[in-house]
Amino acid sequence: MEDLKKLIRDVPDFPKEGIIFKDITTLLKDGAQFRKSVDALAEHYNPEEIDLVLGIEARGFIFGAALAYKWAKPFIIVRKPGKLPAEIENEEYELEYGTDAIEIHRDAISKDQRVLIVDDLLATGGTVAAVTRLVEKLGGKVSGIAFLIELGFLKGKELLSKYDVFSLLRYQ
Amino acid sequence: MEDLKKLIRDVPDFPKEGIIFKDITTLLKDGAQFRKSVDALAEHYNPEEIDLVLGIEARGFIFGAALAYKWAKPFIIVRKPGKLPAEIENEEYELEYGTDAIEIHRDAISKDQRVLIVDDLLATGGTVAAVTRLVEKLGGKVSGIAFLIELGFLKGKELLSKYDVFSLLRYQ
Repeated sequence: MEDLKKLIRDVPDFPKEGIIFKDITTLLKDGAQFRKSVDALAEHYNPEEIDLVLGIEARGFIFGAALAYKWAKPFIIVRKPGKLPAEIENEEYELEYGTDAIEIHRDAISKDQRVLIVDDLLATGGTVAAVTRLVEKLGGKVSGIAFLIELGFLKGKELLSKYDVFSLLRYQ
Repeated sequence: MEDLKKLIRDVPDFPKEGIIFKDITTLLKDGAQFRKSVDALAEHYNPEEIDLVLGIEARGFIFGAALAYKWAKPFIIVRKPGKLPAEIENEEYELEYGTDAIEIHRDAISKDQRVLIVDDLLATGGTVAAVTRLVEKLGGKVSGIAFLIELGFLKGKELLSKYDVFSLLRYQ
């Protein structure tokens, strides 16, 4: 995976001073390596044990959709408030200052369906924890949570300790 | 393509009264048909004549990433303002009231690279026209524009008449 790590660009002071942003656009721009990264995520799972692939807006759509396409699995989406047109469930989560929320269509998941949650990056884990609550509210089971990148020093994995969390690239 | 059309849900009065929203989440939820829709878009193109696949935030990421994955092509993204961390180009476009903008990384495209632009839905075409300006500002060539859905009555195709525009599902 060291080849892939070399393609992640560090952008200092984005979105604010003191943060080093992990930019994945430099990886996506390498077609063979983008494909390899999706295939490497896929290898961690048995697709027969997954009913739905869930992508979190917006970069989670990139890896989630590619995985769903690869496996010919249903792709369901979690979006920011006000974007989904039909009946929704909403979950709030805490930010450094204040709260934010995410939404899912109520008909996205049927009872006992096994859901693989996909996002590009695990930081503090607040958003993804809210996604697990949405999945469970709708009667689904979280069969795994897949990230391209994990920022280990932010300890997001601890918040998600109930689940099988897999990240392709880890930074301590 | 009539099978696919049956999977698109009409949601009346979203995002506001009088609009009938074409909801693609009901298509995405059918894994085999999602795959078929991506493959049907792909069939329209010769991948040897495409250097980069470009997805427009957010739903364009879904079909764009799946196509890029299928072809093992570079995937580049156009995002809403303030989301891309490195040096960007910005283009404004007009809304019914006021203006909005989109951004691309300056290093996303090299001179003369052939770009396939992908989005889920062609309405008035204002956003996609701005994307074509971004591509050309960076020295790229628009080799095609692919949509899952075209709302013919909004005449977006006229705004994009310089380009090869292909839509899988058309509504008059």
